[in-house]
Amino acid sequence: MPVPGPGYSITVRVEAPSSASAAGDLTSAVGRVGGVLTAFDVVESHADSIVVDISANVLSANHAEDITQALDALPGVRVRKVSDRTFLIHLGGKLEVNPKVALRNRDDLSRAYTPGVARVCQAIAANPEDARRLTIKRNTVAVVTDGSAVLGLGNIGPAAALPVMEGKAALFKKFADVDAWPVCLDTQDTEEIIRTVKALAPVYAGINLEDIAAPRCFEIEARLREQLDIPVFHDDQHGTAIVVVAALRNALRVVGKRLEDCKVVVSGVGAAGSAIIRLLQRKGPGDVVAADIDGIVHSGRDNLDDNLRWVAEHTNKHNVSGTLHEALVGADVFIGVSAPNLFGAEQVATMADDAVVFALANPDPEIDPLEAQKHAAVVATGRSDYPNQINNVLAFPGVFRGLLDAQARHIDDAMLLAAADAIADVVDGDRLNASFIVPSVFDPAVSSAVAGAVKAAAQREA
Amino acid sequence: MPVPGPGYSITVRVEAPSSASAAGDLTSAVGRVGGVLTAFDVVESHADSIVVDISANVLSANHAEDITQALDALPGVRVRKVSDRTFLIHLGGKLEVNPKVALRNRDDLSRAYTPGVARVCQAIAANPEDARRLTIKRNTVAVVTDGSAVLGLGNIGPAAALPVMEGKAALFKKFADVDAWPVCLDTQDTEEIIRTVKALAPVYAGINLEDIAAPRCFEIEARLREQLDIPVFHDDQHGTAIVVVAALRNALRVVGKRLEDCKVVVSGVGAAGSAIIRLLQRKGPGDVVAADIDGIVHSGRDNLDDNLRWVAEHTNKHNVSGTLHEALVGADVFIGVSAPNLFGAEQVATMADDAVVFALANPDPEIDPLEAQKHAAVVATGRSDYPNQINNVLAFPGVFRGLLDAQARHIDDAMLLAAADAIADVVDGDRLNASFIVPSVFDPAVSSAVAGAVKAAAQREA
Repeated sequence: MPVPGPGYSITVRVEAPSSASAAGDLTSAVGRVGGVLTAFDVVESHADSIVVDISANVLSANHAEDITQALDALPGVRVRKVSDRTFLIHLGGKLEVNPKVALRNRDDLSRAYTPGVARVCQAIAANPEDARRLTIKRNTVAVVTDGSAVLGLGNIGPAAALPVMEGKAALFKKFADVDAWPVCLDTQDTEEIIRTVKALAPVYAGINLEDIAAPRCFEIEARLREQLDIPVFHDDQHGTAIVVVAALRNALRVVGKRLEDCKVVVSGVGAAGSAIIRLLQRKGPGDVVAADIDGIVHSGRDNLDDNLRWVAEHTNKHNVSGTLHEALVGADVFIGVSAPNLFGAEQVATMADDAVVFALANPDPEIDPLEAQKHAAVVATGRSDYPNQINNVLAFPGVFRGLLDAQARHIDDAMLLAAADAIADVVDGDRLNASFIVPSVFDPAVSSAVAGAVKAAAQREA
Repeated sequence: MPVPGPGYSITVRVEAPSSASAAGDLTSAVGRVGGVLTAFDVVESHADSIVVDISANVLSANHAEDITQALDALPGVRVRKVSDRTFLIHLGGKLEVNPKVALRNRDDLSRAYTPGVARVCQAIAANPEDARRLTIKRNTVAVVTDGSAVLGLGNIGPAAALPVMEGKAALFKKFADVDAWPVCLDTQDTEEIIRTVKALAPVYAGINLEDIAAPRCFEIEARLREQLDIPVFHDDQHGTAIVVVAALRNALRVVGKRLEDCKVVVSGVGAAGSAIIRLLQRKGPGDVVAADIDGIVHSGRDNLDDNLRWVAEHTNKHNVSGTLHEALVGADVFIGVSAPNLFGAEQVATMADDAVVFALANPDPEIDPLEAQKHAAVVATGRSDYPNQINNVLAFPGVFRGLLDAQARHIDDAMLLAAADAIADVVDGDRLNASFIVPSVFDPAVSSAVAGAVKAAAQREA
């Protein structure tokens, strides 16, 4: 049974008798219906009654209702108000735009705005490169989405995608001091998206594409890379690929295998899957076999689009066909970015000894990690409640910090691989084990290590 | 001769002898060539020498060079470095994007980002209006330009316009706690601008158009107002019109005239001029006569575009033709938003008694205000070094604060007039005189008064 986490937490304000047993009655009522109590705060106390805020993690809206009813049913207890703490922190949005300059008096205004600003404008008009020195362009990245593939929620549109893009921008600032701004586009037309991003590019030194559905995302990324003089990164592709390659390097260190000897099975050939395959190819794996809902990708399959054709041409050395389960037989590594519950422990048992299983589908992985670990030597997921969380937060803040610091005009695979190596290297030999193949997302060493590696790679090419 | 202001100020670092007379020699050298000394800071002191930062306001790059040379020519003095303080405060841009939520640990992350954020996204997908409650849309405005008519600098393009838009965004935050973001578009095509602003609208609760050339700006504004469900304001038009109407109301109080008895001459029929005329018409003036580079606008003139035709049809009751100088004869009010040095004191003498002259061309007004005041009762300019500065900062922050607070979906003349009245009313009867017809831009009462008036007007219509 799943355990309630802090992603859904409520606070229930109740009035209760001031008897000695009241607190115990309240907290055990929460526990009885499966809530995880996280705080008990008395907000008022009277001779014969108390008012208490009871905070608890819950599973769902129905579960929150169960807890509320359990409390309300206690003798003498009355529920006054139920607040959803997740919604509370989102009220009014999660970002603000602040001046970095003082505007206290006329002198400040004369320098930051008219008339002084005119000279700064003229300097940039004379030498456009100065925009990277004298404006926010220096440190600013656009987080661009069309709302077509948001989290596991699908095509929810630009307005509903905004809370995710705000969160992303907040992480950019928190982990790498990058100023990021959400751009949620009211169009899902490839040409229109390309045109719009080009039109607004002057303000930005980098573009982070986010949650744009495949195959549209490939075309948008490729065309923007061609036409803009700032780096274009698609986090669902490149961010995921960086962290997977980093985690795989450390997993193979744990089991003592070399990538060039390994057969790697990749399940899911959308944005994440094909980017993982492309980056893995740079490292010379023994073989990669990709599979999707129609089974193994091979050159004889019908209806291959451009993306799948590239995959068919660059993987599957022996051009085998068949099911995912067939692909897994003898495989050293499984990397899933596809769908929940595709196989069980019995399929892991058919893999090579010391198998590595990355079951990254969210929120429910390709295989329950507890099942996978019966036969696999290293298991990773995308979940925060299991060891080895493969989380893009390990990559994107540091990648853009490095790109901005190098004033990079493009991004390439050498920079992505440098980022992957930097993440892997944060886990030194003393700490490396089957339950710790990637650093914590809160490890402050990660972002600066990635930034340094990306900056150096960018400068080598400049 | 113009006096150096803080818009152009330099700091010269010099090494000088530690003699008793050194300080005097340095400061008098600055004054001798016309620099205005603003600070003298000793940064190092040795037995026989000192290092000093000398800050001064200057007129131009050549003037800065004169001052540097005058210092360097002093016996024993060596200039080490010259820094331009205006450029220094622009380094790295003037804005940053900050998270409003804590991201200290896993619980914070689970609420602000995945998995908790998914429920917020779903709530907005189910009820799009919730975006105004649960995202930055609630408090966020786009400052949109194509860089085609920036300050008095003309068509300098989007990158060179960015310092102005950043300054504008900083003022929005400082004066009205509005989060504003610069959108500098790499296109000057009307259709492309409209399409782009529509595409990025989901993140914003208001659009502030800025420094877009006429007549393109009229079409863009009108079409966006028609197609978006958020208010669209063009500061060069509506901001200027609000402040002019406010100042005019108070100027007429000073001279004891009623607008319905006045003949008003408007010079310049671009973005600002035609917006002023449109807003003035709502107040029922006696007559308005507009003039541009081709003289008085009348219905018999050739080559009237849509904008000029509207002006010809709605002004000039007696359908007179002629020059600006002819228009001024007998006029009660002159409002110039046109070009420098169009007339002198002798033309003001031909106006009615107790004439009001607003000479707002920037940086050099239609008439030197010292000349104008020989015959006019009230004189205003756009300059900060003369009383009665007509500055849009009095209007736009409060206007958007009010629109956001009312969750307004459009803006109309009733709201603009409410803003104008609110600005005028900040100057109470005790303080009103010919040198104080508008409040100071730093008066904190202005923005909240304007916001309250605009909010009330918006709510009356909702």
